[in-house]
Amino acid sequence: MSSKNATQYHKVEIPPPQPFLKSLKNTLNEILFADDPFRKIRNESKTSKKIKLGLIHVFPILEWARDYKLEYLKSDLISGITIASLAIPQGISYAQLANLPPILGLYSSFVPPLVYAIMGSSRDLAVGTVAVASLLTAAMLGKEVNAVENPKLYLHLAFTATFFAGLMQLCLGLLRLGFVVEILSHAAIVGFMGGAATVVCLQQLKGLLGLRHFTHSTDIVSVLRSIFSQFHMWRWESGVLGCCFLFFLLTTKYISKKRPKLFWISAMSPLVSVIFGSLFVYFIHAQFHGVQIIGELKKGINPPSITHLVFTSHYVTLALKTGIITGVIALAEGIAVGRSFAMYKNYNVDGNKEMIAFGMMNILGSFASCYLTTGPFSRSAVNYNAGCKTAVSNVVMAFAVAITLLFLTPLFFYTPLVVLSSIIITAMLGLIDYEAAINLYKLDKFDFFVCLSAYFGVVFGTIEIGLMLSVGISVMRLLLFVGRPKIYVMGNIQNTEIFRNIEQYPQANTLSGLIILHIDGPIYFANSSYLRDRIGRWIDEEEDKLRKNGEISLQYIILDMSAVGNIDTSGISMLEEVNKIMGRRDLKLVIANPGAEVMKKLSKSKFIESIGKDWIYLTVAEAAAACDFILHTAKPDSPAKVSGIPQLNNV
Amino acid sequence: MSSKNATQYHKVEIPPPQPFLKSLKNTLNEILFADDPFRKIRNESKTSKKIKLGLIHVFPILEWARDYKLEYLKSDLISGITIASLAIPQGISYAQLANLPPILGLYSSFVPPLVYAIMGSSRDLAVGTVAVASLLTAAMLGKEVNAVENPKLYLHLAFTATFFAGLMQLCLGLLRLGFVVEILSHAAIVGFMGGAATVVCLQQLKGLLGLRHFTHSTDIVSVLRSIFSQFHMWRWESGVLGCCFLFFLLTTKYISKKRPKLFWISAMSPLVSVIFGSLFVYFIHAQFHGVQIIGELKKGINPPSITHLVFTSHYVTLALKTGIITGVIALAEGIAVGRSFAMYKNYNVDGNKEMIAFGMMNILGSFASCYLTTGPFSRSAVNYNAGCKTAVSNVVMAFAVAITLLFLTPLFFYTPLVVLSSIIITAMLGLIDYEAAINLYKLDKFDFFVCLSAYFGVVFGTIEIGLMLSVGISVMRLLLFVGRPKIYVMGNIQNTEIFRNIEQYPQANTLSGLIILHIDGPIYFANSSYLRDRIGRWIDEEEDKLRKNGEISLQYIILDMSAVGNIDTSGISMLEEVNKIMGRRDLKLVIANPGAEVMKKLSKSKFIESIGKDWIYLTVAEAAAACDFILHTAKPDSPAKVSGIPQLNNV
Repeated sequence: MSSKNATQYHKVEIPPPQPFLKSLKNTLNEILFADDPFRKIRNESKTSKKIKLGLIHVFPILEWARDYKLEYLKSDLISGITIASLAIPQGISYAQLANLPPILGLYSSFVPPLVYAIMGSSRDLAVGTVAVASLLTAAMLGKEVNAVENPKLYLHLAFTATFFAGLMQLCLGLLRLGFVVEILSHAAIVGFMGGAATVVCLQQLKGLLGLRHFTHSTDIVSVLRSIFSQFHMWRWESGVLGCCFLFFLLTTKYISKKRPKLFWISAMSPLVSVIFGSLFVYFIHAQFHGVQIIGELKKGINPPSITHLVFTSHYVTLALKTGIITGVIALAEGIAVGRSFAMYKNYNVDGNKEMIAFGMMNILGSFASCYLTTGPFSRSAVNYNAGCKTAVSNVVMAFAVAITLLFLTPLFFYTPLVVLSSIIITAMLGLIDYEAAINLYKLDKFDFFVCLSAYFGVVFGTIEIGLMLSVGISVMRLLLFVGRPKIYVMGNIQNTEIFRNIEQYPQANTLSGLIILHIDGPIYFANSSYLRDRIGRWIDEEEDKLRKNGEISLQYIILDMSAVGNIDTSGISMLEEVNKIMGRRDLKLVIANPGAEVMKKLSKSKFIESIGKDWIYLTVAEAAAACDFILHTAKPDSPAKVSGIPQLNNV
Repeated sequence: MSSKNATQYHKVEIPPPQPFLKSLKNTLNEILFADDPFRKIRNESKTSKKIKLGLIHVFPILEWARDYKLEYLKSDLISGITIASLAIPQGISYAQLANLPPILGLYSSFVPPLVYAIMGSSRDLAVGTVAVASLLTAAMLGKEVNAVENPKLYLHLAFTATFFAGLMQLCLGLLRLGFVVEILSHAAIVGFMGGAATVVCLQQLKGLLGLRHFTHSTDIVSVLRSIFSQFHMWRWESGVLGCCFLFFLLTTKYISKKRPKLFWISAMSPLVSVIFGSLFVYFIHAQFHGVQIIGELKKGINPPSITHLVFTSHYVTLALKTGIITGVIALAEGIAVGRSFAMYKNYNVDGNKEMIAFGMMNILGSFASCYLTTGPFSRSAVNYNAGCKTAVSNVVMAFAVAITLLFLTPLFFYTPLVVLSSIIITAMLGLIDYEAAINLYKLDKFDFFVCLSAYFGVVFGTIEIGLMLSVGISVMRLLLFVGRPKIYVMGNIQNTEIFRNIEQYPQANTLSGLIILHIDGPIYFANSSYLRDRIGRWIDEEEDKLRKNGEISLQYIILDMSAVGNIDTSGISMLEEVNKIMGRRDLKLVIANPGAEVMKKLSKSKFIESIGKDWIYLTVAEAAAACDFILHTAKPDSPAKVSGIPQLNNV
């Protein structure tokens, strides 16, 4: 390495002290207001403008409605009608999945989209119910209340759960606790969604095979057992019809996937299936040959349901639990979808604001006979592809659905259930994202493991088990990162003053007589014992090696603290302990580049005094140069003792 | 900054690929065998020697017994008898605290120390029961089984809990899961111990005031209410006697603290108190004047209790829960004590081996009428001060206790309970380590908060609540560190190529046209949204500032990844997203010094291709130099576009 004059050392600074309250405020700010949402409002000087910006902050419609152009309306009309044609059959299907009256699927596509249009900040999100949350509602509520035996209570609990989900979403948004959904990692979501889609497809076998009784469990074992034990009840008519529609739907989907311009083919195909299916049943009276039909749907738009919310019975905890879990799942999907499309079009979606919008739309929805809604990926993608410009497409969809509710519900009388099952299966197959799973395997084995756990947890256990498993394992990974930080030896890259990991840069040279250890993480109670042991082991191994080769014995241990983000009191005790142990082994501990947080705490403790403040260097290069300098100016047979070294002016 | 020739850039290496199984093995090794306990055995070539070293590994007595010298025996005899004189009154007191027959305290000082002498690796640890675990046993078992109404079941459950505690300790040790106790941070232990000591002292008011009925709750409110509601039952004779002994014990403790050489004064004082107290009662018949006495103690050494273990009744889960919680607490104290004294004398204590020793001693103890034992701090400190050399002092203590059990138990008939209360209070006051708490406040506010939570959780709630609170908050801190990593701007330190945090080094200069951001932690799913928002905010703020000052607009964002220990798939997606967003804002993303783990994953993803591999630099200095070079050679009115930059040979 390049030789250095001992007078060039730089001082390590202790950052200026900050009053406790100020630093607490900063920390809370970083946790809750990382994206500084009020920057614009704060920068504005006039109060009237401030109020106006505040209103826009809460109701984004005020901003985009002002600039709304007539040419947008054409695009929004087309996309609105397209998503309505998808929303109607999908809404009915998902309501059936949730064991709720089919009409609820239509109600849920009327009120919530209108609320979102006023409060939401995404231009591409199309509001509606989702399969996974629907199934989860059925699974959770169904455990305690039978939807067939007690449909009224079940329905009211579904509204209550929706209300609680909305309330929770609203609170998370208002309290800026949006980061709670971050606990669902990408890998966990891939596995969880895949598992849920598999389970939902399995549930559809009931409809496809025309079965009337079915297990309430969602795991694959119970479902298959239920299906094969009813082998004699299978209706081939229903099965054949289902396969035909499935083939049609999958083909249209394939075409649209190959040619994104033909998106409308797959968007329209569910409605086409419903129409053809209904006509088919009507003309050949298939309802008498094993093909189950929807039957009568009530005419008229959403009846109020605010008086049906259940807050007193002992089922309220069930509704609360259901609401919270389904609400979080729905939130995660809705926000991810909004963000993805915003990224394509280069605008911003504020997660916390979206939560408030979702919360309001579910609270108001629960007052108007809707159940849990969010921004489903499939519907939003169709909306985006259809060229929507603003949330007006949601308004168009809402009115199209309202017209259906007012005048067209009788047309669904003959719609065969098997068509709905086919629609659900087609939508679900797209959620089993095996390519993403393969990619996870290639990139990160641990993420793949999380994904698999979520998948198998959902498929062989319950949806909740899958969720808990994936969240638990993901969190364990974070703890493991802190608990077992990497610690590696650094070497000098030839002809430079750069020191790097010798595993990553095998050409880097270690220096004789000293070992440089880089700690790759914070020093906390959870890892201080480990770090102490591991540092000890590095020294032992290095000494063994030197002894074998008959080289100069170890004299200095340089700890590179560049990557040590923080240290707690257990960590400081550990460093003091390491320093004492080394002192007894005639080794000198040297610290390189402690960061602001670490330096602040070390300076408050007595650690700096005990190692000597001259032994803290700004860079690894300077620390190594200083040690090297002492090593080679001291006589080889009398190793430089700590007390005897020349004073360096690095302070 | 010093100007650099563009040809000097160094390549960032991708570490050589490792087979999955090998890297998994390495990871597991780091988690479970961080201290490489079998190094000596592995390095040995002969099988016979390997077996010998293996036996020594399991039974450390084989090693030190060989080198045992007669001169050690004198020291061990003195210290053994000293700790026995402390162990007898303390054992009886703590057994009473656990609502167990007093004789159990003596039994527990006979068998377990012998087991530990054979298997333990600490030379200074003195084995015995501890106050906190005793109280915890009483609190947990007492919730479901009343010790007064059903003493037999209560006793058997205590044995069973001890068995389970030992089994868990053994399993943790064998599976090398010793790091589980690391979840108790230093701060949590300070608060928890202080709280437990406060609670134990409060409990002693029962004995001091001669009360016969007392609450089963441990929180301060219930205890004070129980005491003051029985005001008319207070016995002044008992109170006066207690205060006298308390004064005596505290004085002797104070003397020993001031003059460590006089350690024997405080070590002997409990026994002296017991003797004087018993004589006092005997001669003035104080037992008829409100002074409660121990009464009859059975003669003879430990009766077997293996047949009393309860595995079938429905209380087994209670015993299991009690065993696990008390076992972990006992383990944490024992290992910390062993380590502390080992550090003073410069030898090593292997936590996992200690766990096996503790586990065996509790399992065998539970077969021989002992309840939970560990290495209490007070007794071990006396042992150390008395000059013990090896675990023979434990053997001496065990035999001294055995002689007491065989011949001297009748002497304790008249021992007043109030003396035992005084002994406990004196021991407990030493555990309220307010100085450590003040130190925590100075060093680390968060640790202080953890400490306070533990303290108040124990004092106002229950011991379990305090424990859960402190562990929960400590773990939350770890998650918060990962969830909200620091991200700061770096500047150049004049006349060097060193870049540092401009908050810590206010003299560091930022460069115009580029911003250097240092990410101080891993990039995981839990922080990727935050980092994206935060990077965006840094850019917004920087652009606002530049616009105000009319300076050159921002062109480059350099991300210093030196401290990014790892990245997961969510993190990679975030980087890709940031890169896309920046591309649209005409900004160029540059990466500096990605570590081995990060580089490996980035190279497997398409991220490197999308930012261009020429934009990854080995150091911040090189990245900054390259950007600066392009900025100042390109015309100011036509910013260097990504496609138009000169090719740098840094690959």
